Amino acid sequence: MADAETTNPTQQPPAEAPAAEGADAPKGPSKSELKKRAKEEEKARKAAEKAARQAELEAQKAAAEVDYATEFYGKLPLNQSQSRPRRTRVQIASLTPEMDGQTVLLRARVQTSRAQGSKMVFLNLRQRTDSIQALLTVAPGKVSKQMAKWAAGLQIESIVLAEGIVKKAPEIIKSASVGDVELHLTQLHLISGLETVLPFTVDDANRPEPPETEAEDVQFKRVLLDTRLNNRVVDLRTQTNHAVFRLQHGIGHLFREFLDGQGFTEIHSPKLQGAATESGASVFQVSYFKGKAFLAQSPQLAKQMAIAADFERVYEIGPVFRAEDSNTHRHMTEFIGLDLEMAIEEHYHEVMELLDGLFLHMFRGLRQKYSKEIDAVRKQFPADEFKWREGPEGTLKLSFREAVDLLVEDGVAREDLDDIDTANEKRLGRIVRAKYDTDYYIIDKFPMALRPFYTMPDPEDPTLSNSYDFFMRGEEILSGAQRVHDPKLLEEGMRAKGIDPASMSYYLDAFKLGCPPHGGGGIGLERVLMLFLKLNNIRRASLFPRDPKRLEP
Amino acid sequence: MADAETTNPTQQPPAEAPAAEGADAPKGPSKSELKKRAKEEEKARKAAEKAARQAELEAQKAAAEVDYATEFYGKLPLNQSQSRPRRTRVQIASLTPEMDGQTVLLRARVQTSRAQGSKMVFLNLRQRTDSIQALLTVAPGKVSKQMAKWAAGLQIESIVLAEGIVKKAPEIIKSASVGDVELHLTQLHLISGLETVLPFTVDDANRPEPPETEAEDVQFKRVLLDTRLNNRVVDLRTQTNHAVFRLQHGIGHLFREFLDGQGFTEIHSPKLQGAATESGASVFQVSYFKGKAFLAQSPQLAKQMAIAADFERVYEIGPVFRAEDSNTHRHMTEFIGLDLEMAIEEHYHEVMELLDGLFLHMFRGLRQKYSKEIDAVRKQFPADEFKWREGPEGTLKLSFREAVDLLVEDGVAREDLDDIDTANEKRLGRIVRAKYDTDYYIIDKFPMALRPFYTMPDPEDPTLSNSYDFFMRGEEILSGAQRVHDPKLLEEGMRAKGIDPASMSYYLDAFKLGCPPHGGGGIGLERVLMLFLKLNNIRRASLFPRDPKRLEP
Repeated sequence: MADAETTNPTQQPPAEAPAAEGADAPKGPSKSELKKRAKEEEKARKAAEKAARQAELEAQKAAAEVDYATEFYGKLPLNQSQSRPRRTRVQIASLTPEMDGQTVLLRARVQTSRAQGSKMVFLNLRQRTDSIQALLTVAPGKVSKQMAKWAAGLQIESIVLAEGIVKKAPEIIKSASVGDVELHLTQLHLISGLETVLPFTVDDANRPEPPETEAEDVQFKRVLLDTRLNNRVVDLRTQTNHAVFRLQHGIGHLFREFLDGQGFTEIHSPKLQGAATESGASVFQVSYFKGKAFLAQSPQLAKQMAIAADFERVYEIGPVFRAEDSNTHRHMTEFIGLDLEMAIEEHYHEVMELLDGLFLHMFRGLRQKYSKEIDAVRKQFPADEFKWREGPEGTLKLSFREAVDLLVEDGVAREDLDDIDTANEKRLGRIVRAKYDTDYYIIDKFPMALRPFYTMPDPEDPTLSNSYDFFMRGEEILSGAQRVHDPKLLEEGMRAKGIDPASMSYYLDAFKLGCPPHGGGGIGLERVLMLFLKLNNIRRASLFPRDPKRLEP
Repeated sequence: MADAETTNPTQQPPAEAPAAEGADAPKGPSKSELKKRAKEEEKARKAAEKAARQAELEAQKAAAEVDYATEFYGKLPLNQSQSRPRRTRVQIASLTPEMDGQTVLLRARVQTSRAQGSKMVFLNLRQRTDSIQALLTVAPGKVSKQMAKWAAGLQIESIVLAEGIVKKAPEIIKSASVGDVELHLTQLHLISGLETVLPFTVDDANRPEPPETEAEDVQFKRVLLDTRLNNRVVDLRTQTNHAVFRLQHGIGHLFREFLDGQGFTEIHSPKLQGAATESGASVFQVSYFKGKAFLAQSPQLAKQMAIAADFERVYEIGPVFRAEDSNTHRHMTEFIGLDLEMAIEEHYHEVMELLDGLFLHMFRGLRQKYSKEIDAVRKQFPADEFKWREGPEGTLKLSFREAVDLLVEDGVAREDLDDIDTANEKRLGRIVRAKYDTDYYIIDKFPMALRPFYTMPDPEDPTLSNSYDFFMRGEEILSGAQRVHDPKLLEEGMRAKGIDPASMSYYLDAFKLGCPPHGGGGIGLERVLMLFLKLNNIRRASLFPRDPKRLEP
């Protein structure tokens, strides 16, 4: 207001004073006139004094109003652990109508804040996937008008410490996840405010995605996702994302739970490698003191060496790095590999069957223990429920040849099927779903030409190999095989693929020192998560995704 | 031999032939002489025929001997999963005297092989930490001499498939871990042999280390360890190492078990970073397509961003990278970080106490569930049992000031104690052990000057900080603190440490978007393992260790 007066000094000229001065100027006042004036002045003085007294009283009253609530609201000092009253703070999810009348204390985000007149404020308070309606009502000696005004002005996404009385809601509050109670606030303090503009609201970020169509507007979608990823900290606050990353946690837990029960040992292999292994083209190079190193593109070599060291059964959960300039919905330059390797007694199908058991354990575990999270994700990403085969017939297993036949029957030219490309993989997924009613299946016996040098050839047909891929919704999520444990055959394989055996002498030595037959596989954690939930883009399954164009946040 | 004859043609001239030629040359033989010769030739021919027949018979007999056992031994063809008889193979650990008379099949390494005469061979067969004595005795129709000879010639560390009858041992066999039974072999086949010279035997590698002395010969020890690490696949086959890595598995399991029970979510943060964060000097640089990236030296920034995203409590197990040219017993360039971060309600001691509970859970769990492994390691690395305080007084907690006082009392000059260096840390460990009878303790309230920019200062004394280190046997195994969640204070901290806030804008933004008070810590997995077992060198606690001089195997 002060600024407005200064910048517009002539818009509202004083109307009375100049006219009075003009009228009085020529002649002096009479005595009676002076007396009258003195009287009026005295009157005005008294009136002013009265007004001043009144103002003072009102100010005192107003001051008294601020005072009575001043301790009940406002910004807290920066928490530097000044004190520790050890007062219990509750989770919104734990509040029930049975607690009616209890006073509770909780830390939460302000999801929304809405004033109703000057005496009432409705707040939606959020903790992760849970929210509750909180109500602030002006009441003498408790909640002041100033407190209500302050609360109504809280920026959304602020973090507050709220004290209130739990009340059974008169009717279910649909805007809150805990809808059968509300919180009648008695105190409200700001723990952490915002010092920047919110790029989008969490409500906006949590809205259902437009249904996927064949002719989807990829450009539009990409922009949306990029905005989310650029502001990932806000994006991750959605109910959907809290559910997604609880499910990611669940997959890791179920993976380890199953393998621990099967006698596996968890290992941690180095990501820094002395040589560019497997396929030099897609390996990141690192400056290593005065020399160089390379980032492991899988724990393949290390886990095989662990088998040569008699570890028998090992798994690893860790980052793998791929220097591939692929900008697709399913490629990242860094992702989490769920890898395992095990000694074989008789036949590599021992490994394939264990892997199948592992996937079934994960699928069942997710459905049983994480149904709330799956439902939360489905609200934003509607999808057919993921289907697999239970029952005596077991998981569908096709040979590569049978998979090709299915595609040929469906109209694909056989000469295009030396390999099955991504489009045909998806097509096969649709064929299999229609014919066998499953989103999960295994393809066995890949042509040797399509597999890495360490893959064991088929004993009867050397153009085939003892290798398999696992699929979810028509996309590969695991690749594995029996490995070559004979050093001579391994060297031949290396030479055939243009790799100098001398560059991998440590690896070769492991087999020269005696190694049992073995096999294994590698699973992409984010792919399993993306495909189980049908998130459509792998970046949504990674906390802070990395691709050729993204190294931040 | 052919080469030797060619290169020394004159050293052994034919001695007989020239003399005979010279003697016979002048005169021809008489008729009776010729007759006599013919008779003798006939006799010799018959004798030769007889000898040949005899030899043939013996050969037939010998051939018959080979035949009767030929299927019972020898090298198996390369296992390419030709067949799957689904015959159960047993674990040595499962064999008991109650199984006397049962025929079993097992895959194992040949630990030792020793012939007793030509009719008996003793083999020690090994599976990981277990071994058994196996006996091969020549018996008609069952075990041939050839089979015994072949078995006696098996190279140690070969992998065999052994069939035999379980027999109660007449007396406990001390050389085997399963000493109350032995295996009377009926079949023995080679699965995988050696194609190189064994650098050292597993028996040698498993011998007790010389006791540590104050004046230990470090040079000698380092050479030994290097030999092991250069041939890590053989070194890892020792009982000690199988136990060490089962214990490593156990620490990870106990870490997750405790935190899962405390409502934590496991996260996976990217190791590829767009900027050299925290302290630029010790970060590895990566070629990233046409630009560059850096390897994360901790998940610090990511886990804090997860807190700003309302994850509340997170942990991560993953590699961290340090480009420090430190060649000590306790530094590696890559190790496994056990990291956690959590929101604080009132005071950072909530975090410190949770971390203390975590360590006690790990210590108790290791002692309860892994006593066999701890004992196995102690055979090679004798050490006082790791001690911690149970009971009502709880874990020893000292302030940095109190720790300094203890050192000063012990004779260290106070002016040398602005920081506590490695030598004084160890000294403090000995003082604490003597005074408080514990190998595990916490130091709280470090000077602010010693901590990173994101550390929260003490509310009363800004030269101190809300930070702590945890120690085992006088070495730091965890560093942690309350973090600064206020963006302005954080920017000030960055500038004070010479970091441009613009280079970490994504990180700063997380706090500008509202973030609860929080704290956490990072644990070095290999350090905990090394110090719990007193392995004396961190490389022994890493499967394939990496240091400035080692990138292989």
